[in-house]
Amino acid sequence: MADRAALEDLVRVQGERVRGLKQQKASAEQIEEEVAKLLKLKAQLGPDEGKPKFVLKTPKGTRDYSPRQMAVREKVFDVIISCFKRHGAEVIDTPVFELKETLTGKYGEDSKLIYDLKDQGGELLSLRYDLTVPFARYLAMNKLTNIKRYHIAKDFDIAGQFDPMLPDAECLKIMCEILSSLQIGDFLVKVNDRRILDGMFAICGVPDSKFRTICSSVDKLDKVSWEEVKNEMVGEKGLAPEVADRIGDYVQQHGGVSLVEQLLQDPKLSQNKQALEGLGDLKLLFEYLTLFGIADKISFDLSLARGLDYYTGVIYEAVLLQPPARAGEEPLGVGSVAAGGRYDGLVGMFDPKGRKVPCVGLSIGVERIFSIVEQRLEALEEKVRTTETQVLVASAQKKLLEERLKLVSELWDAGIKAELLYKKNPKLLNQLQYCEETGIPLVAIIGDQELKDGVIKLRSVASREEVDVRREDLVEEIKRRTSQPLCIC
Amino acid sequence: MADRAALEDLVRVQGERVRGLKQQKASAEQIEEEVAKLLKLKAQLGPDEGKPKFVLKTPKGTRDYSPRQMAVREKVFDVIISCFKRHGAEVIDTPVFELKETLTGKYGEDSKLIYDLKDQGGELLSLRYDLTVPFARYLAMNKLTNIKRYHIAKDFDIAGQFDPMLPDAECLKIMCEILSSLQIGDFLVKVNDRRILDGMFAICGVPDSKFRTICSSVDKLDKVSWEEVKNEMVGEKGLAPEVADRIGDYVQQHGGVSLVEQLLQDPKLSQNKQALEGLGDLKLLFEYLTLFGIADKISFDLSLARGLDYYTGVIYEAVLLQPPARAGEEPLGVGSVAAGGRYDGLVGMFDPKGRKVPCVGLSIGVERIFSIVEQRLEALEEKVRTTETQVLVASAQKKLLEERLKLVSELWDAGIKAELLYKKNPKLLNQLQYCEETGIPLVAIIGDQELKDGVIKLRSVASREEVDVRREDLVEEIKRRTSQPLCIC
Repeated sequence: MADRAALEDLVRVQGERVRGLKQQKASAEQIEEEVAKLLKLKAQLGPDEGKPKFVLKTPKGTRDYSPRQMAVREKVFDVIISCFKRHGAEVIDTPVFELKETLTGKYGEDSKLIYDLKDQGGELLSLRYDLTVPFARYLAMNKLTNIKRYHIAKDFDIAGQFDPMLPDAECLKIMCEILSSLQIGDFLVKVNDRRILDGMFAICGVPDSKFRTICSSVDKLDKVSWEEVKNEMVGEKGLAPEVADRIGDYVQQHGGVSLVEQLLQDPKLSQNKQALEGLGDLKLLFEYLTLFGIADKISFDLSLARGLDYYTGVIYEAVLLQPPARAGEEPLGVGSVAAGGRYDGLVGMFDPKGRKVPCVGLSIGVERIFSIVEQRLEALEEKVRTTETQVLVASAQKKLLEERLKLVSELWDAGIKAELLYKKNPKLLNQLQYCEETGIPLVAIIGDQELKDGVIKLRSVASREEVDVRREDLVEEIKRRTSQPLCIC
Repeated sequence: MADRAALEDLVRVQGERVRGLKQQKASAEQIEEEVAKLLKLKAQLGPDEGKPKFVLKTPKGTRDYSPRQMAVREKVFDVIISCFKRHGAEVIDTPVFELKETLTGKYGEDSKLIYDLKDQGGELLSLRYDLTVPFARYLAMNKLTNIKRYHIAKDFDIAGQFDPMLPDAECLKIMCEILSSLQIGDFLVKVNDRRILDGMFAICGVPDSKFRTICSSVDKLDKVSWEEVKNEMVGEKGLAPEVADRIGDYVQQHGGVSLVEQLLQDPKLSQNKQALEGLGDLKLLFEYLTLFGIADKISFDLSLARGLDYYTGVIYEAVLLQPPARAGEEPLGVGSVAAGGRYDGLVGMFDPKGRKVPCVGLSIGVERIFSIVEQRLEALEEKVRTTETQVLVASAQKKLLEERLKLVSELWDAGIKAELLYKKNPKLLNQLQYCEETGIPLVAIIGDQELKDGVIKLRSVASREEVDVRREDLVEEIKRRTSQPLCIC
């Protein structure tokens, strides 16, 4: 291999020389001579079988997860899934792609982000963009009207006709439980209602046909200034400046239940039926959130709009209050880590008879949360174990491979997490070092004397203490010593 | 909604009448009259806003998983992942799609099955077909030479240069452990080696260029007869009939380590260097499998070829020996439920310098296993719980919604899996029925008297027994009563 690599380097250097000469417009003779050298080198190299002709990378917008990152991911998913199960959710799954028409017309301006597949024998397919639309398709297809479910460890929804605001309040409770358990810092959940937004647009003078696109503009307020949003509304979307200004007066307000009360008295807004319904529901929601002990985490925020078309009622978005980075670190910014809302019309778009199934749900921003947890672990210089191996089966002398294989097999069959080095005659030192590197806490050492005595030497890697354990007691002893729950951070 | 649905029915009936008249070649007048009626009905119906114009389905070759199916899937994944962890594997993940060229030229005749995506801004992408090629790409990209990993709960691989047959034997041990734990019936693992196959092809007179395509033909022997495979070799792939017959003599042999010994004495095969290497390794492999206590599960089978191009050494495939269906049921057939092998050249195809990383791995046929476990549960008429809820918070009288919300919130905060009905004033009977239907074992009942006494009535759904528990002891009592591990089958 090393020879081939060196030869490849020579070919590359010679290739560059030829290109250089051509650029410098060197004499044909000189170029010919150098090309001959290049060809000779290439002939020596032989066919470049197995040599890739492409860039080694993952597709744009995707990434791999290393074992360390997966360990973080597993911990985050554990927190999320236990919360979903604590709230009685079932779990479903749907394919990673859907018929293109299933996804079409559900997202509004966000739909540019959908990946289309090539025609597959007459079917136009797209990769799923979120889990909400596939869930609505699933409900309509299976004629389901009631279900509380989660979907690949990040999406939770409650479908069904229930007394108002009870499922909505539970969704917010779930969001708060998950964000508290993850210990990624203080957070706030912004809440609004699409009916309040629509009512507000109506009384401000936005034409009906522009509600959704103006809603998309308002949605940008968490990233850009009001001035920029106003410019987009007026310049790109053709809104009258005075209409935009009226919107501006509203969307800059936020507060608690007292703001709900205040707007219920607003002479214009309270005359709008939709807005009134939304405000009434928010008042009830705040009562339930108080009973759930989370009202202090919630802010009624008139600038919250959410980008997707399918929301019809309450909407919410959780943001971190402080960047979780430590001193000297790049802060990750204060961004949304969970969001959701009510979408009562989506299932009806799939049902052949247009029957509606009211739904409310939430989605956890797992990718963002992974990054935050990863960054925190790095700041703490925490060592993350990426395996759970309890014991390494090792030998103190040569010619004990067979005995090692027999012992490790016994341990596996007894449910012990065990490894051995894939070497006929490994040195004891190398075996101990492997444990240090990978965090294996125990070593079961076989030697000729131990075999004669019917014992195994059990060594604690941390304390270096060794005791002889009778072979028949080994499994129990390993279980006893490793019964502490594993923790990765 | 109901009115609209009735009207839609009328439109459909009228539409069929018109089609019927046209087929019967009725008079133009008669048809015109009925069409007029149809148009009138359609006008009444108004624009069919919200009514889908497409078939409600998942893409060809994909399926949804219902909560019941997901409960089965979770159980199967639990078995598989605990086994992978028991063997010290780390976990990685890679994107669901890859650059098209990453997948090109790795699979051979199976590559027809790859889904291509539309051009995404200059990148040609395809959905991953297996997890082995993305894993090899990951190793090359991250310059890794040693890793033992698993990948979304079904793929396990060991990469690295080790003493021969040790990782290979562990892969077979893992396969046997998983299939035994799943209790899906007796199984057998067929083993062969690509070097033995190639050696056999050589001495039978197959031209080098046809090794891979003839290998694909041999691979079909588990589904079709030797006659059909021979026809394909001779008719489609242009092999001489006498060459095919020589292959036929070999591939109909199978047995244990004694067949390895016998072929080591085969005058022709033992003269072929590749075959000799393969046979020598298989002999060593059988020694290790005996130490692992699984040699009786393994059959050396010369007809095993495996479809994919990338295998270079030992290959294996586990099959169920008896169809797991019960009397009166459609048997699922005896098929492959796990498979794998050694692929020493694949990482080198991605490495810019062609550096090789020897790898061996296995893949569990999880879809097939889900079907088998599902079918068995149905045959047993087992009720599968799809949630893990421990207790329903219920009320015996009206006007206790606030108290229910306070209690359920306390329970969630204490880590108890709890639900309540989303109704202001549910009847106690309905609350108890909900528990019966969903398998919730306990009910925590609040009533006016209980509130005065500072207790909660805890009811066992199965025994209907009720006891008053002090509110401060409720969490402990629920934990005590539900500490038995949950079992779904």
